Amino acid sequence: MESLSKRPIRIAVIGGNQCSPAEGRLAEEIGKRIAQEEFVLITGGLSGIMEAASRGAKKAKGITIGILPGYNPAQANPYIDIPIVTGLGHTRNVIVVSSADVVVAIGGRFGTLSEIALALKQNKPVLGVNTWTLEKQRLKDKKFIIVKTPDEVIMNILTLINSRK
Amino acid sequence: MESLSKRPIRIAVIGGNQCSPAEGRLAEEIGKRIAQEEFVLITGGLSGIMEAASRGAKKAKGITIGILPGYNPAQANPYIDIPIVTGLGHTRNVIVVSSADVVVAIGGRFGTLSEIALALKQNKPVLGVNTWTLEKQRLKDKKFIIVKTPDEVIMNILTLINSRK
Amino acid sequence: MESLSKRPIRIAVIGGNQCSPAEGRLAEEIGKRIAQEEFVLITGGLSGIMEAASRGAKKAKGITIGILPGYNPAQANPYIDIPIVTGLGHTRNVIVVSSADVVVAIGGRFGTLSEIALALKQNKPVLGVNTWTLEKQRLKDKKFIIVKTPDEVIMNILTLINSRK
Amino acid sequence: MESLSKRPIRIAVIGGNQCSPAEGRLAEEIGKRIAQEEFVLITGGLSGIMEAASRGAKKAKGITIGILPGYNPAQANPYIDIPIVTGLGHTRNVIVVSSADVVVAIGGRFGTLSEIALALKQNKPVLGVNTWTLEKQRLKDKKFIIVKTPDEVIMNILTLINSRK
Repeated sequence: MESLSKRPIRIAVIGGNQCSPAEGRLAEEIGKRIAQEEFVLITGGLSGIMEAASRGAKKAKGITIGILPGYNPAQANPYIDIPIVTGLGHTRNVIVVSSADVVVAIGGRFGTLSEIALALKQNKPVLGVNTWTLEKQRLKDKKFIIVKTPDEVIMNILTLINSRK
Repeated sequence: MESLSKRPIRIAVIGGNQCSPAEGRLAEEIGKRIAQEEFVLITGGLSGIMEAASRGAKKAKGITIGILPGYNPAQANPYIDIPIVTGLGHTRNVIVVSSADVVVAIGGRFGTLSEIALALKQNKPVLGVNTWTLEKQRLKDKKFIIVKTPDEVIMNILTLINSRK
Repeated sequence: MESLSKRPIRIAVIGGNQCSPAEGRLAEEIGKRIAQEEFVLITGGLSGIMEAASRGAKKAKGITIGILPGYNPAQANPYIDIPIVTGLGHTRNVIVVSSADVVVAIGGRFGTLSEIALALKQNKPVLGVNTWTLEKQRLKDKKFIIVKTPDEVIMNILTLINSRK
Repeated sequence: MESLSKRPIRIAVIGGNQCSPAEGRLAEEIGKRIAQEEFVLITGGLSGIMEAASRGAKKAKGITIGILPGYNPAQANPYIDIPIVTGLGHTRNVIVVSSADVVVAIGGRFGTLSEIALALKQNKPVLGVNTWTLEKQRLKDKKFIIVKTPDEVIMNILTLINSRK
């Protein structure tokens, strides 16, 4: 285990406990690309989209954090390096989003929608893949960017990170 | 102070810290009507929609609970009978929604959207007034009912409560 | 259900899910006396000390709030008027303590110790009945008062409340 | 930044925002020794004991996680690699403790006492340095071990970890 040389960029990937094979492949590729950029991956630590993204990140030797809902670290999927054990139930999703520089939302269930909203409320940029659309006039100047491919996800992350500097 | 004769129905009214005069009047009337039905009103305890609804409820001698984000009970607006002091920041919104039998969302900012999503995730019915619209095909069988008037709010609450029995 | 005429004093009674019959009788009497003073009783809403105190409060027609750990309001014991549903697991104990003007701790397990410490950290007075003793030199000016009887509990609460004004 | 080869042991160091120079040196040495064992260090991410332990860990090229109370990752001390942003206020202490395999408590204020209690409640071993003593008959079979030196801290951690296997 090596020391981190400087505080890394943190990317959250959010999405359901269950996902279609296509969504899983997408999440895995996105996780891999995130790790290749040397970003830390943060997820809710369980199955579905969270596990697929973490598996991808580990294939590229990334670091994966899993913010768990329960009290048992063994709840974490096998691709989580560092389980953060909250015991907070669904509420732990707030921490996943709050801890990230950029949020990637894959799929469109209600947990994901609440996390997208929480991220936007905190003025964090959100990249949405195959997820909810939100009314433009209510979004105003919030950064909610609909993308389709892992390439677009990474290009947008890089643009967003660079524009912050 | 009198004892409660049986466990009362709990209605959450959610909405922003700031609201237009028209939204405030609407929230006050809804709060009043909720109290007239002898439902307990639960809000986030602060200003804007939360204060207007609580003021309405007190005009009808209702009981008002305010789930506060900070550590200071004096943060509660003057119409809150019982402040619940969480110190949890925005995260206290989850408790507002989870504690209610029915959720009434007024207005359409991002905190409200996240609470609508959290309520629907928990299969709680949500009545939306002047708020976000959500894609029908993603809503599926969730109860997200768009209404316009206090009358419609109360009639829908009564129908929802009665259909549960 | 009647309106509350002014914001009432809130007393938390904390203690284990399980308790001895003697502790249960003590908690019930304390709950009853709290309600007779027209204070609102706040507990964790479950069994043991929490249920005994709530039962006592309802015998004196008090109002009882139960801050629940899970997502199901039916988890509340039958003497809870208003369940607050947190889904936060053990963490909900912080809210019980933070919401009270004075904390009464009955019995001495680890949850209770953590809540005593959290209350003292927030400079809230704690009355301890059959509970942990803490080293005097570390307590400094914190109000941790060891008492034995319901009479002593109520007299101390009244003194603490009056000294605040 | 290198990948972690397997899920590492996680050690929490808890203690106040402010500490004496002697306590700070102790915390720094303990943090350094924790990192030398290739354990991940988890703290509350702020100043005092938390910063001293994290500085020590970084001197030995360890990985440091800071579970922050607020919403701003820049709140983290400069020795935190990965800030986890909770917005939960003091409540975030629960997560520090719940996420660790072993808890090291340095110093004796009320936040520390509440965390010791929470750790013991979860049956996590706690090593206490210059901290509260607790009544033996109430501790029963809980592992609350009073130690004095960094050597003792590390030796006890190793024993505890090995006894788990």
